[in-house]
Amino acid sequence: MKNNLFVIFGATGNLTYKKLLPALYRLMDQNLISSATKIICIGRKNFTTKSYIEDALTQVKEEINWSVFKKSLFYYQMDIESMPDYIALKTFIENNCQMYTDNSIFYLATAPGLFPIIARGISEGNLVSKEDLKGRVVFEKPFGEDLDSAKKYNQMVRDYFDENQIYRIDHYLGKEMIQNILVVRFSNKIFEDIWNNKGIKSVTILAKETGGVMNRGGYYDGSGALKDMVQNHLMQMLSLIAMEPPEDFDTDDIRQRKVQVIQKLKANFNAENLLVGQYKGYKKEKGVDPDSKTETFVFLKAEIDTERWKGVPFYILTGKQLDEKKSEIIIEFLENSHSHKKWPKDSIQSNRLIIRVDPEDGITFQINTKIPGLSSDVKPVVLDYCHGCQAIGNLPEAYEKLLLDIVLGDTTLFPRWDEIEHSWQFIDQVKAYLGDTTPIEYTNFEELRKKVIK
Amino acid sequence: MKNNLFVIFGATGNLTYKKLLPALYRLMDQNLISSATKIICIGRKNFTTKSYIEDALTQVKEEINWSVFKKSLFYYQMDIESMPDYIALKTFIENNCQMYTDNSIFYLATAPGLFPIIARGISEGNLVSKEDLKGRVVFEKPFGEDLDSAKKYNQMVRDYFDENQIYRIDHYLGKEMIQNILVVRFSNKIFEDIWNNKGIKSVTILAKETGGVMNRGGYYDGSGALKDMVQNHLMQMLSLIAMEPPEDFDTDDIRQRKVQVIQKLKANFNAENLLVGQYKGYKKEKGVDPDSKTETFVFLKAEIDTERWKGVPFYILTGKQLDEKKSEIIIEFLENSHSHKKWPKDSIQSNRLIIRVDPEDGITFQINTKIPGLSSDVKPVVLDYCHGCQAIGNLPEAYEKLLLDIVLGDTTLFPRWDEIEHSWQFIDQVKAYLGDTTPIEYTNFEELRKKVIK
Ligand SMILES: NC(=O)c1ccc[n+]([C@@H]2O[C@H](COP(=O)([O-])OP(=O)(O)OC[C@H]3O[C@@H](n4cnc5c(N)ncnc54)[C@H](OP(=O)(O)O)[C@@H]3O)[C@@H](O)[C@H]2O)c1
Ligand SMILES: NC(=O)c1ccc[n+]([C@@H]2O[C@H](COP(=O)([O-])OP(=O)(O)OC[C@H]3O[C@@H](n4cnc5c(N)ncnc54)[C@H](OP(=O)(O)O)[C@@H]3O)[C@@H](O)[C@H]2O)c1
Repeated sequence: MKNNLFVIFGATGNLTYKKLLPALYRLMDQNLISSATKIICIGRKNFTTKSYIEDALTQVKEEINWSVFKKSLFYYQMDIESMPDYIALKTFIENNCQMYTDNSIFYLATAPGLFPIIARGISEGNLVSKEDLKGRVVFEKPFGEDLDSAKKYNQMVRDYFDENQIYRIDHYLGKEMIQNILVVRFSNKIFEDIWNNKGIKSVTILAKETGGVMNRGGYYDGSGALKDMVQNHLMQMLSLIAMEPPEDFDTDDIRQRKVQVIQKLKANFNAENLLVGQYKGYKKEKGVDPDSKTETFVFLKAEIDTERWKGVPFYILTGKQLDEKKSEIIIEFLENSHSHKKWPKDSIQSNRLIIRVDPEDGITFQINTKIPGLSSDVKPVVLDYCHGCQAIGNLPEAYEKLLLDIVLGDTTLFPRWDEIEHSWQFIDQVKAYLGDTTPIEYTNFEELRKKVIK
Repeated sequence: MKNNLFVIFGATGNLTYKKLLPALYRLMDQNLISSATKIICIGRKNFTTKSYIEDALTQVKEEINWSVFKKSLFYYQMDIESMPDYIALKTFIENNCQMYTDNSIFYLATAPGLFPIIARGISEGNLVSKEDLKGRVVFEKPFGEDLDSAKKYNQMVRDYFDENQIYRIDHYLGKEMIQNILVVRFSNKIFEDIWNNKGIKSVTILAKETGGVMNRGGYYDGSGALKDMVQNHLMQMLSLIAMEPPEDFDTDDIRQRKVQVIQKLKANFNAENLLVGQYKGYKKEKGVDPDSKTETFVFLKAEIDTERWKGVPFYILTGKQLDEKKSEIIIEFLENSHSHKKWPKDSIQSNRLIIRVDPEDGITFQINTKIPGLSSDVKPVVLDYCHGCQAIGNLPEAYEKLLLDIVLGDTTLFPRWDEIEHSWQFIDQVKAYLGDTTPIEYTNFEELRKKVIK
């Protein structure tokens, strides 16, 4: 087991406290990464290592044995925008963690506006070397704000680093049930031959939130649901559901087939197929433009222009301040071609496979059976698989899996550049069609549901 | 709702007390058949209606409101073997239940040896008329003891009655989950295209009992597991699982497709494909020949020689004094053709659909999913549907459904003659192959399992 060094930029931020530190602690605690791992936490604030740990102690919610974990932590104060500070950082690392420098991981967990400057800093400061492939660099989302900016950003990143050193985070890919998609598809015969337009009637990919923008209004208002959720998380789910079977399941094979799906994503835009909404009160949120036209809800009907999927609608739905917190994928199958001969149409429902991503990881499978008793009528019933119930202890957080894979050098669960590129291409088309459209105002999901579900 | 008359021959017997009276009571109690229904209970014993009811009260286990139910009951003592007694019975009915005679149902619930004489009695005594189709006649199993005797028996029955008046009981067909087979197959897309040799690896139909022959040794020793279970119940399950999709689901359509399967049942007999056993101590049971070679266990591998099923083994297994009381159908699917590329063979199990007939009516569905946690390995998990849990009150007993269908004149759940004929044809082949074979002695299922499951 190698001794790794994590360098986190933005270590006094929300993401670090909520996700990164707990995940790193758990990995060390389970001995999945070396317990001698060092973590340099970088912020602008005037902390010492001691006072940083005191702060972290109050901010981190998870149970951590701090007396052990603190041995791994350094706080390092610097101004991310100042190039000389990277030289000083290098010296700090050499003085404190010399033996780790071959296995260093730089995690960019700041506001996205700072990503380019940090990338430049760690490259020009010789903290990461493109030539001998030493060091890995992890980019938090968002990766660009449209196709153009993402291309420029990627160009810059690629100037500094080799593709193999780059880890673009989409934390949905680390979620248990997202990892499970390929397992369900490709280890079960029952779903093999039916996974196409001869078996499937529609696919719905949804991520509903109950909360508003909270304290992220400033960032969110420049983004909106399409860029914040669809371009990355929902598109990734869609590509795993719809991709062609991989030949050998290696990283590039899987990424290749994912990107092929995103490339073929088409939408015939009109009011039926695309709806954007904004929750009432959004314009008054802190950081939000009082005249904002940013969408906090989007419903989108698309198709994938391949042999396999011709004619199958893919519904994408996500938004804030909706009726429930739920992220899931609903595969609705066609009707059995014999059922109409025996049962009235309205007593039968399509078979459904629901992959529940969040909050209750699991699988729901809906089939029709005889109503118990003397009638011979039919009704749908639900078979359930609870993924969490099968776990020993808690299910790992997405970040735990992703950080482990970064250490192991496995990039399968990280989107490749061209996946991001084609996602943006699609989102840009949606945006272009929307133009200056004012999203409809909503106060609850019911109003929206009526408009999008026929 | 018509006023029906039930005439039960063998009404002081086990079947009447255990099944028929409770079922008739429940049907009346739920107003599914007229509460004015009359039931003439025929036995040899010297009872009055009053003393019969007193006896029934102690024998019937179910909760019955006797003060209501007794109004429907008559006891009628006669000698089933005496023809003049049928003339007297007719007079009795005319005197007591004149208004019911158009809707009378004669239920033969005696030892099978008496069926021919009763059939002759009710026909010659003019209790049932073949000409104007008045009256229905219900035959308990077994229907014959081999192909020859069944043919003769059927010829006789058909001389007396029209096919539409004849109800041959196979009470398995009244069981909830057996009725559910066609629903599961033909109302669910997910099972439509996979229900053949391109999707299914094997089918197992089993009925295991824990008890021995009890007080039925005399009857059983002349029969054995093949005739007592396979010829009727297991063959019926098999035909429902394997039949081609019906065109319009009417009674004759379904029966036609069932018989086509039974006709195509083939077995390549050898020691691997056929095993008979006899539980230790069987020869000492009351009524059993001390040198008996009757099998109390049978395992059989057969095939169905059709396009759909070529190459798929159908395993049939039934016996007494085994490890558990369980009757179920296990559909084992093939492997997903991609799984071997990613997962080691032994971590994946075939998908299984288990239709649980008895004792816990329901469906078990086994699929492979990711092991929860940081591993990306796979393991099988089980999704469950509990049929009984969905019922309001208890699930109806098979006899309740069958008696109701007899009243309604629906013969779908009663085997047609040719189904029985071809079942016997197959059983006769098995018997011919076995000849004088001595069944292996067993004391528990484990010994047998090792021999039949590779
Ligand atoms: N929060 C989440 O749950 C979440 C989820 C998914 C993705 N993300 C992504 O993760 C990234 C970080 O999000 P966050 O919520 O953690 O942000 P945040 O709470 O606003 O934290 C920003 C961090 O950047 C540091 N920083 C800002 N300017 C700096 C400078 N000039 N020099 C040095 N440090 C500077 C801040 O340090 P000081 O505090 O010392 O000023 C702070 O540590 C974003 O890209 C976001 O999109 C977050
Ligand atoms: N028991 C079950 O759970 C079960 C399940 C499935 C199928 N079956 C089938 O149902 C049938 C009946 O089984 P069972 O167990 O109820 O039999 P059982 O307990 O032996 O009863 C036999 C009945 O026939 C009557 N009987 C016999 N000879 C007679 C005669 N000469 N005249 C008038 N009545 C006569 C007996 O009357 P007396 O008592 O007055 O002599 C008694 O009522 C059999 O064909 C069996 O295979 C039974």
